Amino acid sequence: MSRDPDSQGPVDGDTDQQEMIPSKSAVLVDGVVLNGPMTDAKAGEKFVEEACRLIMEEVVLKATDVNEKVCEWRPPEQLKQLLDLEMRDSGQPPHRLLELCRDVIRYSVKTSGSVSNMYAMNLARYKYRPDIKEKGLFGLPRLILFTSAECHYSMKKAASFLGIGTENVCFVETDGRGKMIPEDLEKKVWQARKEGAAPFLVCATSGTTVLGAFDPLDEIADICERHSLWLHVDASWGGSALMSRKHRKLLHGIHRADSVAWNPHKMLMAGIQCCALLVKDNSDLLKKCYSAKASYLFQQDKFYDVSYDTGDKSIQCSRRPDAFKFWMTWKALGTVGLEERVNRALALSRYLVDEIKKREGFKLLMEPEYANICFWYIPPSLREMEEGPEFWAKLNLVAPAIKERMMKKGSLMLGYQPHRGKVNFFRQVVISPQVSREDMDFLLDEIDLLGRDM
Amino acid sequence: MSRDPDSQGPVDGDTDQQEMIPSKSAVLVDGVVLNGPMTDAKAGEKFVEEACRLIMEEVVLKATDVNEKVCEWRPPEQLKQLLDLEMRDSGQPPHRLLELCRDVIRYSVKTSGSVSNMYAMNLARYKYRPDIKEKGLFGLPRLILFTSAECHYSMKKAASFLGIGTENVCFVETDGRGKMIPEDLEKKVWQARKEGAAPFLVCATSGTTVLGAFDPLDEIADICERHSLWLHVDASWGGSALMSRKHRKLLHGIHRADSVAWNPHKMLMAGIQCCALLVKDNSDLLKKCYSAKASYLFQQDKFYDVSYDTGDKSIQCSRRPDAFKFWMTWKALGTVGLEERVNRALALSRYLVDEIKKREGFKLLMEPEYANICFWYIPPSLREMEEGPEFWAKLNLVAPAIKERMMKKGSLMLGYQPHRGKVNFFRQVVISPQVSREDMDFLLDEIDLLGRDM
Repeated sequence: MSRDPDSQGPVDGDTDQQEMIPSKSAVLVDGVVLNGPMTDAKAGEKFVEEACRLIMEEVVLKATDVNEKVCEWRPPEQLKQLLDLEMRDSGQPPHRLLELCRDVIRYSVKTSGSVSNMYAMNLARYKYRPDIKEKGLFGLPRLILFTSAECHYSMKKAASFLGIGTENVCFVETDGRGKMIPEDLEKKVWQARKEGAAPFLVCATSGTTVLGAFDPLDEIADICERHSLWLHVDASWGGSALMSRKHRKLLHGIHRADSVAWNPHKMLMAGIQCCALLVKDNSDLLKKCYSAKASYLFQQDKFYDVSYDTGDKSIQCSRRPDAFKFWMTWKALGTVGLEERVNRALALSRYLVDEIKKREGFKLLMEPEYANICFWYIPPSLREMEEGPEFWAKLNLVAPAIKERMMKKGSLMLGYQPHRGKVNFFRQVVISPQVSREDMDFLLDEIDLLGRDM
Repeated sequence: MSRDPDSQGPVDGDTDQQEMIPSKSAVLVDGVVLNGPMTDAKAGEKFVEEACRLIMEEVVLKATDVNEKVCEWRPPEQLKQLLDLEMRDSGQPPHRLLELCRDVIRYSVKTSGSVSNMYAMNLARYKYRPDIKEKGLFGLPRLILFTSAECHYSMKKAASFLGIGTENVCFVETDGRGKMIPEDLEKKVWQARKEGAAPFLVCATSGTTVLGAFDPLDEIADICERHSLWLHVDASWGGSALMSRKHRKLLHGIHRADSVAWNPHKMLMAGIQCCALLVKDNSDLLKKCYSAKASYLFQQDKFYDVSYDTGDKSIQCSRRPDAFKFWMTWKALGTVGLEERVNRALALSRYLVDEIKKREGFKLLMEPEYANICFWYIPPSLREMEEGPEFWAKLNLVAPAIKERMMKKGSLMLGYQPHRGKVNFFRQVVISPQVSREDMDFLLDEIDLLGRDM
């Protein structure tokens, strides 16, 4: 922080305010007038709050919009100038503040992480050995957990944070569609045991980030039962299928999970971020595991009943307002309204898949189960070529080239990536209710328009 | 979730919408009309967003208001009925949703926890032994950290979460004013070493929750230097004094800390929650410690520069919007505006202290350093009594009795608690800019009014 060379010391109250209050009651302590609230400051604060709210909304809305750019990248030195980061002695006028808001949003990375998986890992560990809470992990056999190679990066981050270590996250093989292979899971659990490690948790995924794959929960639950392992299901992305009677079979076996992470906002609640951790337990596990907090909150006022926070609650949220937001949305739209959203998103996905199959030059990576549609565009020059090394090498360059043209034209944003031996492909994730059939048609038309001379 | 017995299956699109779109282009997939966006659903969603925003604001504003009740307590069974928790197939009308919002707020516990201390602990651990990130804590000597007995409960919670264990949080003695005793810290560090444990972190507190005490940072920093320990300062509550040239001496030595947690909203930004973790480091510690996340965020689009997130940045926030909110507030009010708030809050505290000293029947626990004013009200019947066991036993009942009268009358809310051998006392925390001198006078008048017949 810098100070202007001509700045004054602490301001001795507000002159307007002094005029409002009869001078006989004015009280001055340490050079500060203490009568009445600081009304001017409050007005300024109100503006800041309003501006922030307005802009936050824009950020949140855009963050959940698949077609939005993740970031308008600028080098740090340029950002420093663009954003006018320096703090000054005096406040800035409203219009300047709004400009700053807009700039910050423009050049910020828009992301959300998920802490639900970490909370689940901590609960599983507590269940495995409650005394870890007091004693730590020192002197214990190496704890080990299992997840598929397609899982969310947050599992490694959580293992590192919880003192378990990233190397003790054991990756189970997946099949060609990205689903965990139960036989490989069981093999690796036995192997870990033989090495003297202590398996305690399996994290299955319902709806992987890239392919939208669903692990076979029922078979995985059998293995967890046999080995007394906690089954956590990361249904952050795929959990919304549970709202649809038509599509919930994707999560068959989820009732056997010990915990489930779910971000309903991804498909159900555009514009409202929400992440939930659902825990099945009738032994006060949550309370016992996190009781340091509970005892603090409830120590001061004796008329609180400490048992209030436990009992038959099965849904706990790491952030209370999240649970509240989802509850309100459910209340507002009803169960049928939420089901409609899921059905619509998956019907739109189906439409896109059918169009890709119909159109010349488009090729699906695989028949999707969910709303992640992965496909290649094969430009005319490659259509007659044999699918050998040269073909794949050339196809690998197509998606990046088309994306560059899209960005220059500003027509639309569509992600691409290589994945597990597949060369660069486009990935469209369909989220209801913002997109329509017309958007799907436009997407394919535009790719063809930009790529047909390649 | 329950379904109404007379509920329909998935709704086959919206009839209004079908009329808006020429029927020749209507596309039906899996029983869902895919033309155009779901406009009706969007309107409903907009309402939910607006209502939530409105109410959230009220929650946040009230949560930072010292005079607000923490919770309107009701037993679980009664809450179930009051809040109408059941989910239904169809959505509810706007006025009913607003009622629900109001009820939820009324019966909810309003709190905030702080994760900054946990992030700092993780960084300190990484600095101590980087390979813990991959290997975990298995086979290592017992890590141990030091904090004062007056510290925030979050240190124990963090130690448990990170696999260090609550028993490895070593509590250092405090003096009569609640300040950490440096000699006892050094003694306990030596003792831990002798026992074969591995000291790695000292967490000092600048502004304790109850007494508002400031640990002697300079002397603590000396000890940390001698023993190569990370110095973290929890300045969540007291950090705002740094904005005042008059009061920043309370945090003398803070420039020697490796990390500092600060919640500027507590004194500077009423109504806007914000928690920050400031880290002093020139070795890319944050990036290396949390790189699982960084590599995920930056892998997909090659035009991003991975070095963007590091460099000379010294402020990192666990939640980006928090940093943004504080930055905007600083921009809006200026350095002088923030300083003015701190000076005002501490001048008001001074005023309250002076009044307590002047008035008969009021007694300070101790001369406060900051904005936590702890005091007893001694009713007329006890004023002539000797300060022996009987006096303290009787005084212990006074604050709860007065508070009960306050609540029944609904005049004001004021916390009380016993603390380290002191019988129940009142604690007023003065936060600018909402309160004024008149509020301080009213507070003392009201206590006297309610307690003078005791």
